[in-house]
Amino acid sequence: MTRIAYFGPRGTFTEQAARSLAEGELVPYDSIGLAIAAVRKGETDAACVPVENSVEGPVTATLDGLAEDEPLVAVAEALLPIHFSVLARPNVDAADVRTVASHPHALAQVQRWLAQNLPSARHVAAASTAAAAIAVRDGEYDAAVVAPVAVEHYPLRTIATEVADIPDARTRFLLLRRPGELPAPTGSDRTSVVAATVNRTGALSELLTELAFRGINLTRLDARPSKGGFGEYRFFIDFEGHVAEPRIGDALAALRRRCHLRFLGSHPRADGVRPSIQPAAGNEDFVSAADWVESVRKGDTA
Amino acid sequence: MTRIAYFGPRGTFTEQAARSLAEGELVPYDSIGLAIAAVRKGETDAACVPVENSVEGPVTATLDGLAEDEPLVAVAEALLPIHFSVLARPNVDAADVRTVASHPHALAQVQRWLAQNLPSARHVAAASTAAAAIAVRDGEYDAAVVAPVAVEHYPLRTIATEVADIPDARTRFLLLRRPGELPAPTGSDRTSVVAATVNRTGALSELLTELAFRGINLTRLDARPSKGGFGEYRFFIDFEGHVAEPRIGDALAALRRRCHLRFLGSHPRADGVRPSIQPAAGNEDFVSAADWVESVRKGDTA
Repeated sequence: MTRIAYFGPRGTFTEQAARSLAEGELVPYDSIGLAIAAVRKGETDAACVPVENSVEGPVTATLDGLAEDEPLVAVAEALLPIHFSVLARPNVDAADVRTVASHPHALAQVQRWLAQNLPSARHVAAASTAAAAIAVRDGEYDAAVVAPVAVEHYPLRTIATEVADIPDARTRFLLLRRPGELPAPTGSDRTSVVAATVNRTGALSELLTELAFRGINLTRLDARPSKGGFGEYRFFIDFEGHVAEPRIGDALAALRRRCHLRFLGSHPRADGVRPSIQPAAGNEDFVSAADWVESVRKGDTA
Repeated sequence: MTRIAYFGPRGTFTEQAARSLAEGELVPYDSIGLAIAAVRKGETDAACVPVENSVEGPVTATLDGLAEDEPLVAVAEALLPIHFSVLARPNVDAADVRTVASHPHALAQVQRWLAQNLPSARHVAAASTAAAAIAVRDGEYDAAVVAPVAVEHYPLRTIATEVADIPDARTRFLLLRRPGELPAPTGSDRTSVVAATVNRTGALSELLTELAFRGINLTRLDARPSKGGFGEYRFFIDFEGHVAEPRIGDALAALRRRCHLRFLGSHPRADGVRPSIQPAAGNEDFVSAADWVESVRKGDTA
C-alpha cells in the first residue's frame, strides 16, 4: 500500500491536502523537514507539504528542503481555501469561552472574527492547529481554531465553521516523490525549478529573459538566501507548461547553460489555468524550426 | 523628543534594532501593522520593523504594510545577528528546567541546542519571545528563549547566551518615516521600490532588464500576491545605489514608465558594501551622455 508522509499531527490542513492528492496510508511527521526526509529515504512513497500561502508567503522549510540533498519532484498540487473551524469541549458554549488556542499564523488570520465573536477570550499560541485541538480535549483551553478535518480526529463540538478574516486566503500544497516517471502533460501544467547563480549584475534578469523571450509566463518567483546568509540567493521559479513540451524543454536547456539548475517537477495546475501561447512561441513553432535546422544541416533546404 | 514606534512588547529583537537606529522614546505596539500605522498617522516620528530574516524569509506584514495606504520611506536599516539568550527564574537551575517557552520561529531556530542542553524540557509556543519571558516571570514556565535585551526588562537569570543552531542567522530591520528629506548618499546605499505590473508574460523580466542594462545590482526581490490571491503579484525590489545618483534616477524613471511604482527609500547599507560600477554605467557616464544630448539639441555639437 502507498504510504504518504505529511506535515502533521493528524487534523491539520496538510492532512486535508494529502487526502485530496493521494490514496494510501497517511503518516504524520513532526516537521516539514522530517516529512521530506521520509520520502527521500524511502520510508514513504510520497510526501505532502505546504509550499506557499497567499497571506503568509512562501513556506521556507519546504523551499530549502527541495533545494538541498537528493532531488525530489512535485507530481501534483492542491489549492486549499484556508477557512478555519472553531471547536470547543462538548460542555462549553461560545459564551463560556475564556481561552482560545491555535498556531500563531492561524490566530493572526482570524483576529477580526475572534474580536467580534469571542471578545472576552484570551488568545494562546500552540505549536500547530491540531496541537491546540489536543490541548482543548485535555482541558487546558476552552476552544481551538483548527482545520475543518480536525473535528474527525478529536471529540470536540463545532462552534463555528468557515471562519476567515480574508475569505480568499489559500495555501498551495505539493505531493513530492523521488524522481521517476513524470505525470503526463494535461495542457494546464506547472513546471518548477530552483536556480543558483553567481552574484553578478543581471544574472536573474538573464534567466527571466530566457523564459520571457520564449513566451513562457512565470507563476511564482521566490528568492531565498543560500547558506543562511543574505549575500547569495537561490531562485525558485515556477512557470506555465510541462517539461514534455518542446517549448519548455528548449527553455530548460537554456536555463541549464546559465546556472546551476535543479528540476523540481512538472504537474497539473490545481486551478486549471491554461497558458496563453505567444506568437511564434507554440510547440509547433519550436518543432518546425528545429526540423528546418535539421534539413539545412543535411543540405536538403536553405 | 523623537518618538519611535516598534513591534513590541519590550525586550524583543525589534527593540534592540530600534535602539541602534534612533535616539528617542521607544513606544511598543502589538503588531507590525500597528507600528506602521502609528508613524503614518503621526502618533510617532518613525517606526522600526523587521523586513527579512535569513532563515524565515521576508516579513510579509512589513511588505504589505509598505505597499498599501499612504507612502512611507525607509531612512535607515540595521542587521542583527539572531543569537538568543535562555532565561529562567532566579531559583531555577538548567537541570530543573521542565518547560521552555518562546515564539515558534525562535524555538525552530534553537531546536538542536535545546535537544543537547535541555533534553527533558517540553517546548511551549508563546506569542513572542518577550511574552515567553513574561510567562516565566509569572511562574507559568521554567525558561524562555529570548532576545538578549529581554534580560534588562525582566528579573530573570541567564542560563545561556549566544544560542543559535544557525550561527549566521540575521534579521534586517528598517526605520520608517513619512516622506521628507532623504538621508544623504554615502557611496554604500540601498534603494527600495514596490512595483505592480499587469500579469503579462515578460513584465518582470523587463523591469529587471532595465536595472541590469544600467549595471545596477539587485540586493533582494520578493514577489507577494496582491489582494490575498495568487494571480496578481507585487514585486519588492531592492538594489544598490541612492536615488540622488544620476544612474539610479535614470533607472527609476525607466521603471516608472513600465509599471505602478512606489519609492520605499534610499538609505545607507548596514553591511557597508559598495557597488561595483560596470563599464559605461557610472554616474559620470550618465551625466556626460545627458550633457551631450543637450548640446546636440542646442546645435553645439553632433
